[in-house]
Amino acid sequence: MLYTHATIITVDRSRRIIEDGAIRVENDSIADIGKTSQLKARYADEDEYDLSGRIVIPGLISTHMHTAQTLLRGTADDLELVSWLCERIWVLQGNFTREDGYAAARLSIGEMLKSGTTCFLESMFADRYGFDGLCRAVEESGIRGCLGKIVMDIARYAKDDAWAMHPGLVENRETSLLGTLSMWEKWNGKADDRIRVWFGARTPGGVSDALYREMTALSRSKGIPITMHCAEVRADRDFFASVSHTPMSYCESVGLLSPSTVLVHMVHLDDSDIKLLSASGTHVAHCPTSNAKLASGICRVPDLQKANVNIGLGTDGAPCNNTCDLLQEMKLAAIIHKSISYDPTSVPAESVLEMATINGAKALGLQDRIGSLELGKKADFVAIDMRGIHSQPWFNPVSAVVYTATGRDVDVVVVNGRMLVKDGKLLTMDETEIVEEAQKRSKEVIERAGLMEKVKARWPVE
Amino acid sequence: MLYTHATIITVDRSRRIIEDGAIRVENDSIADIGKTSQLKARYADEDEYDLSGRIVIPGLISTHMHTAQTLLRGTADDLELVSWLCERIWVLQGNFTREDGYAAARLSIGEMLKSGTTCFLESMFADRYGFDGLCRAVEESGIRGCLGKIVMDIARYAKDDAWAMHPGLVENRETSLLGTLSMWEKWNGKADDRIRVWFGARTPGGVSDALYREMTALSRSKGIPITMHCAEVRADRDFFASVSHTPMSYCESVGLLSPSTVLVHMVHLDDSDIKLLSASGTHVAHCPTSNAKLASGICRVPDLQKANVNIGLGTDGAPCNNTCDLLQEMKLAAIIHKSISYDPTSVPAESVLEMATINGAKALGLQDRIGSLELGKKADFVAIDMRGIHSQPWFNPVSAVVYTATGRDVDVVVVNGRMLVKDGKLLTMDETEIVEEAQKRSKEVIERAGLMEKVKARWPVE
Repeated sequence: MLYTHATIITVDRSRRIIEDGAIRVENDSIADIGKTSQLKARYADEDEYDLSGRIVIPGLISTHMHTAQTLLRGTADDLELVSWLCERIWVLQGNFTREDGYAAARLSIGEMLKSGTTCFLESMFADRYGFDGLCRAVEESGIRGCLGKIVMDIARYAKDDAWAMHPGLVENRETSLLGTLSMWEKWNGKADDRIRVWFGARTPGGVSDALYREMTALSRSKGIPITMHCAEVRADRDFFASVSHTPMSYCESVGLLSPSTVLVHMVHLDDSDIKLLSASGTHVAHCPTSNAKLASGICRVPDLQKANVNIGLGTDGAPCNNTCDLLQEMKLAAIIHKSISYDPTSVPAESVLEMATINGAKALGLQDRIGSLELGKKADFVAIDMRGIHSQPWFNPVSAVVYTATGRDVDVVVVNGRMLVKDGKLLTMDETEIVEEAQKRSKEVIERAGLMEKVKARWPVE
Repeated sequence: MLYTHATIITVDRSRRIIEDGAIRVENDSIADIGKTSQLKARYADEDEYDLSGRIVIPGLISTHMHTAQTLLRGTADDLELVSWLCERIWVLQGNFTREDGYAAARLSIGEMLKSGTTCFLESMFADRYGFDGLCRAVEESGIRGCLGKIVMDIARYAKDDAWAMHPGLVENRETSLLGTLSMWEKWNGKADDRIRVWFGARTPGGVSDALYREMTALSRSKGIPITMHCAEVRADRDFFASVSHTPMSYCESVGLLSPSTVLVHMVHLDDSDIKLLSASGTHVAHCPTSNAKLASGICRVPDLQKANVNIGLGTDGAPCNNTCDLLQEMKLAAIIHKSISYDPTSVPAESVLEMATINGAKALGLQDRIGSLELGKKADFVAIDMRGIHSQPWFNPVSAVVYTATGRDVDVVVVNGRMLVKDGKLLTMDETEIVEEAQKRSKEVIERAGLMEKVKARWPVE
């Protein structure tokens, strides 16, 4: 298939942009890319899909996502973090069934695909949500997923007993570490290699030093990457300080710092942390909306960039965003660092688009296959419709993508060579059925958790 | 007409939310509002428009907008402020024709209507853009507009000669102050009272003390409100300090503090400024995206709220946003203050929805007619489609509107009783023609200004 007449932002090594460009897809890969006129001359008999008026970008990569939480969109707004976590999110998630996990995965994937995310890193899917269901949802939908299965053995957050985890979510070494290994054996590389299984370590404080060391050793010996929340809030730093560490010196001590690790949030870092990150090649998943809404603070992105730390972008879960829309996330990533640095040139649009594409691919260890549009890479790309009144005029396509477009402008999505979204509509999933199932199951979860009164409108309803 | 089966967020005095609610529109006003079942019983013969699955909110009010600048979307990203203003925006705007002004106004209004903005405050339309064209665009489109015509007599910003205004934009007392009065006489109250003409004072530094005093005296005697940028950047404070003032003590000295004044941005305020604002009943237009992207800083919204200062919301112009989407602006307004205060309960969704509706109406002196949905008020409302996969599930409609919806979810827009947007499409304007005209004129303006090389992609284009 020839996709033609688009403005293509390749994010290739030279960062070239092709005006009136075309992509030839053969099976799951990009078989050619260049000017439409050239490709049409070369492949005169090939079917053509006209993308006039669209900007094509590499498929977006979300390096931090809680798939289960999309079922809990809008259930925990404007709350202090302990209440947010211990009185809402954990209680709700602690009441999930495996069917809820599958419904949530399908809802998440549907939203991600429709808004241009073609690959995501699930942070820590719990055993109770049914990891098999998540894998099935990835397989059926056609999206690409790196799926972190939770690894934990302590049922609280940081060092404070106030942050006790809901009993419904507690796992021990056997369910969590060995459970992940068993899922890795079953699913890693499946669905045409679109599924990768990861260790999804809980935050320090939720994993014993011994379990960390066991997991990091297994990560190295078997080549299983690790993702983990870290230094998200001040309480994280306090926890590390209580064991005579900074966040990164702790992570180093248990073997977590590595090019096979994605550390998430990373708001409360000092200069020594940044040095350790940089020296070890550890990746950072930046989630500006989540950090802002939960009042965690603002990640030191310009300093991390100066230190050549690789930064990907993530939406985090729906209760702290409340969308899975990486295009909106890009805009915030571009402006929030300007706001506190008083430097409007910091974190320009180009570097944000890199975060959401090639940097994300590097973070996931998939930079040889995805993250940019070039010959031989997997055909994962997104066409954004820029013809509407809210998008016009535009001159710099990177600016248009980062500062103007939202997920609702996504018109076509191709993953692994297969068209999954066409004219803004899902081809591989039944949207109506997903929404109805999500509405029903979400309500049931909230009722089981006894939280309906707290979740509803705060203004009087009649 | 009966609009039925919606979840209605009234923003009335008791802030009630009506589930399965209905609005009866007669001529330009809300003739009844309540439960669908009750209204259908009362008005059995009335035509019905079914809004099932939609959340209805009062029409959004943007208290800061540069209508001309939408033609310049994406032409000045990631730039230091002096370059942004003096080397891009002013040069571009200094090359506008009257026809460009009209095209820009139509583009702006089309985008605003489609994203739920039913009333806007144009900040300072220059004489060269053709004020008549702006009024015509408001009249033809059906939107409501408070239209600030620029008032100025000094051709620089703050006190630095580096910030010299482009000669194409310079006006003197006669064109600006008297020009506004003449436009006021011609257009104020026209288009079924949808047009109000305001003084659009330039920033302190661009207006002499004498002209300020003349304008504020006229404002009081004739009842013409004033809007003005103020305390946007540190250079503003420095300017005020150079004349032995804080921003608000200066404004007080020239008669600007009043319930008929909307001061815009207001980032660099000290406690004394906040006291003066509060005591005088002066309104603030908060533009978080613009302040973040231009690295101006973050407005002290929680402190202003504590002092009972009335705060409206604005998108500002397209070169510093790069959309006119107040729904996206609401999300940022809700999260950015949390991010720097470490308090996730500050500026909750409810207070942001108030900013974009009833507070905006108060700022514009129109709170008796718009800003909430209640009997006797003008029928200005917006139906947001919440049925899509990216919006589900939701339980608190205010959260859904502020944190999840974007302008692209707007389905129906009614202003002054007239449906202007239906199924997400403009009814009163030809979108294709507006876009084509905007593309052509934007390109021409950039070429006349000699800026095409600077405005295009920063990555290599082939």
